[in-house]
Amino acid sequence: MTATLAPEAARLGDPSPLRARPLLLDVDVHPLFLPRDVLPRLPEPWRTRYANEHSGGARVVRDYPRWRNGGFRLDAATPGGPPGSDIDVLRAQLLDEYGTDIAILIPLTFELEGPAAYKAALCRAINDWVAEEWLDRDPRLRASLNVPFDSPDLAVAEIERFAGDPRFVQVMVRGDAQSEWGDQKYWPIYRAAEAADFVAMCHVGGEPGNRYRGSGAPSYYLEQHLWLHMPVERLAMSMICEGVFDEFPRLQVALVEACLTWSGPLQWAMDAAYEMAGNNAPQLSKLPSEYFREHFWLSTQPIEEPDNPRHLVQAIELARMTDQVMFSSDYPHWDFDSPLKALPAAMPPEMRRKIMGENAARLYARRLSRR
Amino acid sequence: MTATLAPEAARLGDPSPLRARPLLLDVDVHPLFLPRDVLPRLPEPWRTRYANEHSGGARVVRDYPRWRNGGFRLDAATPGGPPGSDIDVLRAQLLDEYGTDIAILIPLTFELEGPAAYKAALCRAINDWVAEEWLDRDPRLRASLNVPFDSPDLAVAEIERFAGDPRFVQVMVRGDAQSEWGDQKYWPIYRAAEAADFVAMCHVGGEPGNRYRGSGAPSYYLEQHLWLHMPVERLAMSMICEGVFDEFPRLQVALVEACLTWSGPLQWAMDAAYEMAGNNAPQLSKLPSEYFREHFWLSTQPIEEPDNPRHLVQAIELARMTDQVMFSSDYPHWDFDSPLKALPAAMPPEMRRKIMGENAARLYARRLSRR
Repeated sequence: MTATLAPEAARLGDPSPLRARPLLLDVDVHPLFLPRDVLPRLPEPWRTRYANEHSGGARVVRDYPRWRNGGFRLDAATPGGPPGSDIDVLRAQLLDEYGTDIAILIPLTFELEGPAAYKAALCRAINDWVAEEWLDRDPRLRASLNVPFDSPDLAVAEIERFAGDPRFVQVMVRGDAQSEWGDQKYWPIYRAAEAADFVAMCHVGGEPGNRYRGSGAPSYYLEQHLWLHMPVERLAMSMICEGVFDEFPRLQVALVEACLTWSGPLQWAMDAAYEMAGNNAPQLSKLPSEYFREHFWLSTQPIEEPDNPRHLVQAIELARMTDQVMFSSDYPHWDFDSPLKALPAAMPPEMRRKIMGENAARLYARRLSRR
Repeated sequence: MTATLAPEAARLGDPSPLRARPLLLDVDVHPLFLPRDVLPRLPEPWRTRYANEHSGGARVVRDYPRWRNGGFRLDAATPGGPPGSDIDVLRAQLLDEYGTDIAILIPLTFELEGPAAYKAALCRAINDWVAEEWLDRDPRLRASLNVPFDSPDLAVAEIERFAGDPRFVQVMVRGDAQSEWGDQKYWPIYRAAEAADFVAMCHVGGEPGNRYRGSGAPSYYLEQHLWLHMPVERLAMSMICEGVFDEFPRLQVALVEACLTWSGPLQWAMDAAYEMAGNNAPQLSKLPSEYFREHFWLSTQPIEEPDNPRHLVQAIELARMTDQVMFSSDYPHWDFDSPLKALPAAMPPEMRRKIMGENAARLYARRLSRR
């Protein structure tokens, strides 16, 4: 099932200084599945349940302010389906258009609700669809595994099912996790991810119900858009404080589509509180900020825009995250960032090169280099 | 009822360059009321209800990690009561010790639950206690009004009851508000506050139930400590997006005990989202960051501690909040910040002078100068 890596992509684990063109890795690209993709891959009784749930049109469960056109680029739809549903359109609009070396697919599942066995079956169907309809058809694609996160045993089974397929590079940590993310309940997932060199990746957004880890719902899309960085701050705190990284020292966590510049302030605040906390502090072997910098990675879209763009560069430097920020386009969403324009002109060339590709190549090197 | 202002304090509205000593205003000091303070000030049937609820010892409803000694300085208790319950101790340990010009009392009410009329009666009792037992007894003290925030008509009545007493300088916006803070439901409160030159002040922390605007409860005090800045970010977004400041252009909001350095990142992220949002954006007359800087004020405790303290100075400058950060001690809590040590030595003298007193004097000038 493993696709052959393109010659350029094959060297990603060890970016060569001889490459004429800087690497371009895009860590946030959304393929969209439709009932026609999921149904044939679901066993009964789940096929009937899913069909019933989707009879009478798409099921819409999101309770946050909606964006026009469902949040998608107007030019990304095709006669055959909505944006993100056609690999040829994605190739033309993204991979070929910008010469993307590697794009990492994140198939968001807004509707992962129901009994555990149903959620597990849905994840299997979606992962199989990604493998067969996307990864098998373009060697530049990599993907994220959907798992039934609140059923750790079932999640581990799904991770192990794909551990040998290096085209899957990360496991999706759900924004609507029912417990705090550092809870030992989830440790079997982190253990399995670490063992197979999967990155743990969280991309909040679109979860059903009112699960943004904040009560109430915002009134404007602007608010919903920015709110996404709050749950991942809690995720980082929780995983650090619960000792996840002492237990799993090789585990790496990518926080996708959640802004960047809060990362310095969070590190400073965690260290200040930790140093005060005495015997009430969690039992850590280093400063919280050290765990953060050793284990967390951020993506560029949506990127903050100070009116002086040099302040963005300064904020990344102050946070010491220069080596851990990764370009992402968020294709095919309406707020897609072109690789040509995502970063401000004022950014130094070295920082730009790292963000556009080298950092992601380093993060995903272990799995990208598996054959 | 109005106390005479001390000669120094009387000039606070117009800080004179001739003052030999820089101003010292402390915007976060907690007096603690006990059942013996509340009971005689409650009418029936609420007195009986309150007595029943407090029979068998103090009622503890906080569901977050507890700090040793209830979160108080070990040296602040007296034989007669717990820390914060004795004005003479507060004078000795805080006002006299550091030569504080003005200290603003924030009487936190952890237990504001029950029917609206009961909550309103509790607020009245607490406000009367503050006026009689604290403000009447030391001219350096000012205070914050407790109001039944989710019953706006009752809240407005309480604001109007104290509008003529300039020793009360602000109205407490509750962290456990049942709706989003910008909701028009609360506009009568903001209207009454603006009309009487009250600052709207939010100090999250200690609310009953699971109301930190984040699901789940953190495992460690470190996490709970830092979590406080997340609800106030949502508060700022919500008030800006709902148009509170177009309706109430003179309203000022103080966010106390919620860190500082997130304020630049939030402004940059709000502006970036706003510029993209087109006709889905809230109807604002200026950039979100402009509202933020024109209406929001922050306090220093707890302060972030980058290991290079100059980074803190840079972060405040990048956020353009140099004129809106105010010193706070959080007395008598365990993590009290001494005015002598709160700010890093690397901070430029002008920024230090502003933060230690001049900024707060400017914010509270209208009410401080009322006689």
